[in-house]
Amino acid sequence: MVEDMATAQFGKETSTRGEFVRQPNRFTERITTDGPRRPEPGRYRLIVSLACPWAHRAVIVRKLLGLEDAISLGVVDPLRDDRGWRFTLDPDNRDPVLGVEYLADVYRATDPDYQGRVTVPTIVDTTTGTVVTNDYPQITLDLSTQWRAFQGPSPSPPAADGFELYPVELRAEIDALIEPIFHHVNNGVYKAGFATSQAAYDKAYAELFAELDRLSERLADRRYLMGDRLTEVDIRLFTTLVRFDAVYHGHFKCNRQKLSEMPVLWAYARDIFQIPGVAETVDFDHIKRHYYATHEQINPTRIVPAGPDPAGWWEPHGR
Amino acid sequence: MVEDMATAQFGKETSTRGEFVRQPNRFTERITTDGPRRPEPGRYRLIVSLACPWAHRAVIVRKLLGLEDAISLGVVDPLRDDRGWRFTLDPDNRDPVLGVEYLADVYRATDPDYQGRVTVPTIVDTTTGTVVTNDYPQITLDLSTQWRAFQGPSPSPPAADGFELYPVELRAEIDALIEPIFHHVNNGVYKAGFATSQAAYDKAYAELFAELDRLSERLADRRYLMGDRLTEVDIRLFTTLVRFDAVYHGHFKCNRQKLSEMPVLWAYARDIFQIPGVAETVDFDHIKRHYYATHEQINPTRIVPAGPDPAGWWEPHGR
Repeated sequence: MVEDMATAQFGKETSTRGEFVRQPNRFTERITTDGPRRPEPGRYRLIVSLACPWAHRAVIVRKLLGLEDAISLGVVDPLRDDRGWRFTLDPDNRDPVLGVEYLADVYRATDPDYQGRVTVPTIVDTTTGTVVTNDYPQITLDLSTQWRAFQGPSPSPPAADGFELYPVELRAEIDALIEPIFHHVNNGVYKAGFATSQAAYDKAYAELFAELDRLSERLADRRYLMGDRLTEVDIRLFTTLVRFDAVYHGHFKCNRQKLSEMPVLWAYARDIFQIPGVAETVDFDHIKRHYYATHEQINPTRIVPAGPDPAGWWEPHGR
Repeated sequence: MVEDMATAQFGKETSTRGEFVRQPNRFTERITTDGPRRPEPGRYRLIVSLACPWAHRAVIVRKLLGLEDAISLGVVDPLRDDRGWRFTLDPDNRDPVLGVEYLADVYRATDPDYQGRVTVPTIVDTTTGTVVTNDYPQITLDLSTQWRAFQGPSPSPPAADGFELYPVELRAEIDALIEPIFHHVNNGVYKAGFATSQAAYDKAYAELFAELDRLSERLADRRYLMGDRLTEVDIRLFTTLVRFDAVYHGHFKCNRQKLSEMPVLWAYARDIFQIPGVAETVDFDHIKRHYYATHEQINPTRIVPAGPDPAGWWEPHGR
């Protein structure tokens, strides 16, 4: 999770004005069809936390593009200890492919002097046990564009076989939409939740809901953000929306409304949730335990709320 | 506020099992028509925080019974400093009748050795400047039953002139209802919010919503808890419900639903809110600032959420 170290490094990531400032990532190598490191089925392993919205994007893209056989998946425990993300969900507390107990072990194997953040998603080269990239905005784009030869059957319409989440002709518009969604929504909820001054919180809250209002308007008369086609930008918005009522509304104080009180966005998010394959990537238990039990600076009791009931996600979306 | 010292004395009020245990009050003298201390218009002053649900009861009862001329009202700042509740909303930061800067001054004048909690509501004898009672469950009952000769025009039907909130023939049933509402709802939200163990929280949460479900069922086919008549027990339930979405849902993690997602209770609460005189006793600004900025053990950043919009309280209740 990119925000994981926001916790460990809360001080570092809060400016003197009480604003949350996301730190840059570190490993930015790419797997591309025309570069030194080519796509190769079975060679790369995607390490994620199911709690993390940034990692969740890659889990969904991999699933909808039918890349599960091409790229394997490792899932860390939603709770870390003082050595970081752990493979405690696996037999012997080790990732069965990489053989390590901690994601940090892979980072150290890559760079023994590494002092930066250990984040998910991370793509690991299983032949060397080293990090290829933890550059989350690039990871999903490359999954979409560089692995087309290896796409298997997709679990679902509208994500039919060979379909694209980042089609060339729409990239300019997708990229333009991604920008405000990142600043005001994806990262906006963190800016609200991690603010240490009322002014910083108020600003983040206002920008978040103004952007959600704009998106509601856009989605009032089109099924997905780009129209009839599900694309990358929908996935990016979805992974924030699916966490909204479970954690952002209460834990991060994004409480103008619940998602379930914003009719257009709520139906839109249910529509995506109900695409075959997507719901199984959503783990509300991991999500809630991670956020509430990790951010002691905003929830010192580490108590995890019992609500809300996620059953509503299966209600007909009518879109 | 009775819970105020729950903050200052958080350790004391949390058991070894992580459960919130409310401490008893201290001053329990009564003003009665047949006792040593008789009702006397102009002599007594009710000191409240508008943030506090226990004090809010007395504010509403005084208003609906037309006792505003008989008993004066002093309002403290929703935020305390290290000397406690302050009269910083008044000119020169002093209560204009009592002449003191702190409610604690009145307690000390009453008992120089007093080591207990300084709470609202407190009824003060203005002729001596000393505490008569801070026994909140008795205060509203005595306002209803001992001051009948001094009731003035009530601001509203159903609270017509001379009406009763605690009529003799209904007391047994009212008392029986008050009991579970206190334990599971009024105090239940505090047990959830101040729990320091997951088990204590889970228990409080389950009991709270089970009781709210029972109350929803009861109110499905009657306007008020006792039928057609507004009574004391409605006031007691209302002061918790009116704070539910503003503070208990997020801050105290009572998040199975918002009040606004529980249709019967939401309409019932709006019905009471819209009784002329009641809405003006509700101060969402005091409520939100007090809870979020006071309980550092559960909200260390002291940031006050911007939502939700209270406009919905004025929607037609249809009851």
